[in-house]
Amino acid sequence: MPPGYTGKVLRVDLAQRRTWTEEPPAGTYRTYLGGRALIAQYLLRELRPGTDPLGPENILVFATGVLTGVPVGGSGRNGVGARSPLTGAFGVSEAGGYFGAELKRAGFDAIVVHGKAASPAYLYVEDGRAEIRDAGHLWGLTTGESQERLHQELGDRAIRTAQIGPAGEKLVRYACVINDLHHAAGRTGMGAVMGSKNLKTIAVRGHKPVEVADPGAVAEMGRWLRDNVDKLARAMRDLGTAGVVTGLDRRSGLPTRHFRQGQFEGAQALSGRTMRDTILVDRGSCFACPVRCKRVVQAQEPFVIDRKYGGPEYETLAALGSLCGVSDLAAVCKAGELCNAYGLDTISTGVSVAFAMEASERGLLSHDDTDGLEPRFGDAGAMVALVERIARRQGLGDLLAEGVARAAARLGPGAQEFALHVKGQEVPMHEPRLKFGLGLGYALSPTGAEHCNNMHDTMFTSEGPGLDEVKPLGILEPVPANDLGPAKVRLYYYYVSWRHLLDSLVFCDFVPLDLDRLTSLVSATTGWDTSLWELLKVGERCHHLARAFNVREGFGPGDDRLPERFFSAFDSGPLAGVAIDPAALGVAKRTFYEMAGWDKNGVPTAGRLAELNLGWVSPLLPPTQ
Amino acid sequence: MPPGYTGKVLRVDLAQRRTWTEEPPAGTYRTYLGGRALIAQYLLRELRPGTDPLGPENILVFATGVLTGVPVGGSGRNGVGARSPLTGAFGVSEAGGYFGAELKRAGFDAIVVHGKAASPAYLYVEDGRAEIRDAGHLWGLTTGESQERLHQELGDRAIRTAQIGPAGEKLVRYACVINDLHHAAGRTGMGAVMGSKNLKTIAVRGHKPVEVADPGAVAEMGRWLRDNVDKLARAMRDLGTAGVVTGLDRRSGLPTRHFRQGQFEGAQALSGRTMRDTILVDRGSCFACPVRCKRVVQAQEPFVIDRKYGGPEYETLAALGSLCGVSDLAAVCKAGELCNAYGLDTISTGVSVAFAMEASERGLLSHDDTDGLEPRFGDAGAMVALVERIARRQGLGDLLAEGVARAAARLGPGAQEFALHVKGQEVPMHEPRLKFGLGLGYALSPTGAEHCNNMHDTMFTSEGPGLDEVKPLGILEPVPANDLGPAKVRLYYYYVSWRHLLDSLVFCDFVPLDLDRLTSLVSATTGWDTSLWELLKVGERCHHLARAFNVREGFGPGDDRLPERFFSAFDSGPLAGVAIDPAALGVAKRTFYEMAGWDKNGVPTAGRLAELNLGWVSPLLPPTQ
Repeated sequence: MPPGYTGKVLRVDLAQRRTWTEEPPAGTYRTYLGGRALIAQYLLRELRPGTDPLGPENILVFATGVLTGVPVGGSGRNGVGARSPLTGAFGVSEAGGYFGAELKRAGFDAIVVHGKAASPAYLYVEDGRAEIRDAGHLWGLTTGESQERLHQELGDRAIRTAQIGPAGEKLVRYACVINDLHHAAGRTGMGAVMGSKNLKTIAVRGHKPVEVADPGAVAEMGRWLRDNVDKLARAMRDLGTAGVVTGLDRRSGLPTRHFRQGQFEGAQALSGRTMRDTILVDRGSCFACPVRCKRVVQAQEPFVIDRKYGGPEYETLAALGSLCGVSDLAAVCKAGELCNAYGLDTISTGVSVAFAMEASERGLLSHDDTDGLEPRFGDAGAMVALVERIARRQGLGDLLAEGVARAAARLGPGAQEFALHVKGQEVPMHEPRLKFGLGLGYALSPTGAEHCNNMHDTMFTSEGPGLDEVKPLGILEPVPANDLGPAKVRLYYYYVSWRHLLDSLVFCDFVPLDLDRLTSLVSATTGWDTSLWELLKVGERCHHLARAFNVREGFGPGDDRLPERFFSAFDSGPLAGVAIDPAALGVAKRTFYEMAGWDKNGVPTAGRLAELNLGWVSPLLPPTQ
Repeated sequence: MPPGYTGKVLRVDLAQRRTWTEEPPAGTYRTYLGGRALIAQYLLRELRPGTDPLGPENILVFATGVLTGVPVGGSGRNGVGARSPLTGAFGVSEAGGYFGAELKRAGFDAIVVHGKAASPAYLYVEDGRAEIRDAGHLWGLTTGESQERLHQELGDRAIRTAQIGPAGEKLVRYACVINDLHHAAGRTGMGAVMGSKNLKTIAVRGHKPVEVADPGAVAEMGRWLRDNVDKLARAMRDLGTAGVVTGLDRRSGLPTRHFRQGQFEGAQALSGRTMRDTILVDRGSCFACPVRCKRVVQAQEPFVIDRKYGGPEYETLAALGSLCGVSDLAAVCKAGELCNAYGLDTISTGVSVAFAMEASERGLLSHDDTDGLEPRFGDAGAMVALVERIARRQGLGDLLAEGVARAAARLGPGAQEFALHVKGQEVPMHEPRLKFGLGLGYALSPTGAEHCNNMHDTMFTSEGPGLDEVKPLGILEPVPANDLGPAKVRLYYYYVSWRHLLDSLVFCDFVPLDLDRLTSLVSATTGWDTSLWELLKVGERCHHLARAFNVREGFGPGDDRLPERFFSAFDSGPLAGVAIDPAALGVAKRTFYEMAGWDKNGVPTAGRLAELNLGWVSPLLPPTQ
């Protein structure tokens, strides 16, 4: 960052077909860093409460962070945020790849999209200029088809895209935004918001290297990472996130048949090793990253899978695999490919399919509902078919495209009790009964059930590298996974701050930079004499902004809940008899409120907001009790 | 610190004439660091609420911190704590010199003194051993006489002492503990507690260098400090803290005639330059410190001043000088010498004398009260005489030895309105009307009115080195001195955490190590992979422990107050018309409570305590509202 740089934000008004550039007030970047925090403050400042998430008044923000585009692995990401059509709450998701770095190289730190285009449009951004262009010829195309057309007609295959597929166009409430065909800003339905604006694609090309305060120190950090990646992240490269399938299965933590089991007889078939030894053809990467955790798979029959869509993460394998009782790896990869081609969040898609399977099993779906397709656990063909129908809103897919909360509401109380969502967002592929703190995180997360900010139970519950990593936070003792006491709440509080920091830097969690190196990298990039204190406070600030947004939208303690399924135990296996105690969860929730400086209704106090330099937020909130 | 080291604490039971050594539980030092935080947790754990501060059940703790004794300037200090006989609240004070380092070299991190000796005793500590010895021959002696006797009879002039003078023996409520004759643990009456235990002196000799994890890095830090001290702390060496006299006077911030004025016609006479150019004969130092901010003065007549007692700090010059309307530097130095010889806190002493002067002026003192001495502002002789009478509890001195709160209560409501104390401790020599945040700090400080933890208004209210120093805390903008809004409260919150950190490390604030170097020094010393986050959390922890102690003793929001004098303005001068608005102060106080995670009654919430790893404290407190 050059000294005195305050950022360049591209404003796009699709209704007026107008773009302009603005520089945020001095201090904005040091206060918010970018990404999630920057997005959250835009949403709080610029949206009126009650804005229709799919109406033209919603804004859609694409944001990089201060580290984006520096030549160190982990820096290629970007965040996408808006009020979520899935939850009505703060919506945001981050994606890897190259789009974020390219946007920065094109001279912009963020794009704020306003209004709705009268007809399908795409935004072309190159080296400080931006243009709203017609996308009538792209509308209806898959991400792959659409990107190919753009690359051909613009004559530059290096153009990076963030786009929606047909699912976003059809306003599937968990449609995602796809970068470069296989990196998804998956959660909270940002693709539907993009679709509601008739915006198919943001295509970006930039030629200007990102300027940093201390190029030598930044380069040295990149070198250090390359030199140590084999030691620190070899398993991640070898097996990707799929590497965890069998370990979770052993511990009864592999969500199976709609979370009614934690072990799956087909776990081996879905494992990272099986993938590596069968259909894996390459490992993919993101900008500047030596980790190469991404999968590239290919197959011919019975499912033709195009390698250009990459390959499945663990979440995809579990959501479309074990959760649906499907052990056919190729079918799961095909469904994952469809999600990338149509622009669907694989987690919400898988949970929606599994929800339909359980509803079908319980006889809650009429023939009219199913449109002839009766999905049953283990039916790979039905699973793949449903993914396509969801994307196209056909038959049962149209119901499921609303998400399980709304689908269950239509099917009646019998269905609501097994609709696995929090705040309307489907539960990801981590088992709260294996990690109680994760359950607390699901309940409290401002974006509804999500896993990225809730892995504290995995990292800090035993001695070892995870605990060593957080000792600089003052977390000196491990806390058992099946504990929901104050020490666990503290772990969660610190972790959620750290994660919101990473999501504001929009820096990857899989890149093994410890807290000290991360702080040094921010200093070297920006020239700020910063500290872990200042950075974690941005994380806390971000989390409080998200909470404030939700409070203003009417969310309260009753929304900080878990699906009842997690309050009863499995009959057998390593977790037999283990369930989350709702009373203990309630106590932990209240402890968290106090820890965060929120009142009994979960409303941040004015004093705490002032401590986080968020005095401007208090007047937007109801009085605290 | 050797790996696995958990500390060595010397327990002393004076009643049983027994000493023993214990090792605190693993993690104690990383959680509390030493000094103030270590003391606070001892007081909370081991004192019953309502313990008589001057009774045998009070404990008196001498504590070093993890940095004490390392060969870097600032590391020679130690803290002394107990329930305060002046305030009934958390009592603690830190002293410089060599005693702390020597105690550590003798193999102990802290001493906890229990009970009361049947007859005067002193404690001798040498190289891991300790002995309670008779001090009948020392009782009644000044600190200088007593130390000389000890040095002679033990045959080792390198023995370091922490001792009381006659004032401590007489239980003057603001008697102090004196290290090496001229470094005072001045405030909150720790000398009276020592006196109440019949403990005259702790004499220490140690021969074992303090072990550190990375001697090279620690030595390098010491070298850096020596190399840069001229650049960073030249004024402090040249003029000492007395350097601020004239600057404060110019801004109407030199407390004069009992805070009824802020400018003093005798300011030049009391200035650091005048001292340097007249009676200064040397500059003193503390262990390993190249700053040499301490003064050494000497005079023959009319006041004979012995250089062995050092020389006055700014607080002493103002409290015994301008506050009493006395411009005779030699008289002020003499009074300061007497405070060191008798073991009196110069601040509380000066305020008590000035209180008597105002009471006398108002005709509130009867002849019986004054014992023939009618103190008037500007009367240097009366001021010096009163210091001696306070120490010996003679005549009016006996009344003043109780502190101004108790003295005013005896003199009646007319006197209470000008008794300048908070929570029973006399206000130090900084003008809240010049720095509104300082007033907030006076009101909130757990030890009653005190200045060390409340200088945020001086440091962060303008652009410059002070602000640069705290930018790593995320304080990016200066806040005007005459502001009590949320940004000011935030400054105070962060500063008070930082200061409580320094007081737990027992590291000197005058040594120009920035936050990053301080963190590195802790890492190099301990071998911990720590961070500024972890360290500042110790500061917050310490502050919350102190608050919890006070809450348990019945202190509440009504005690977080300011004397009314600061709510009205001076008639003339740069601050004419400027006063603290009590309503604004009340709002700031409530903002602070929220920021700290305290309820409306100022009681820390269980959640916030859990966040600070202080879950054990909650059951000691009343339920939060």
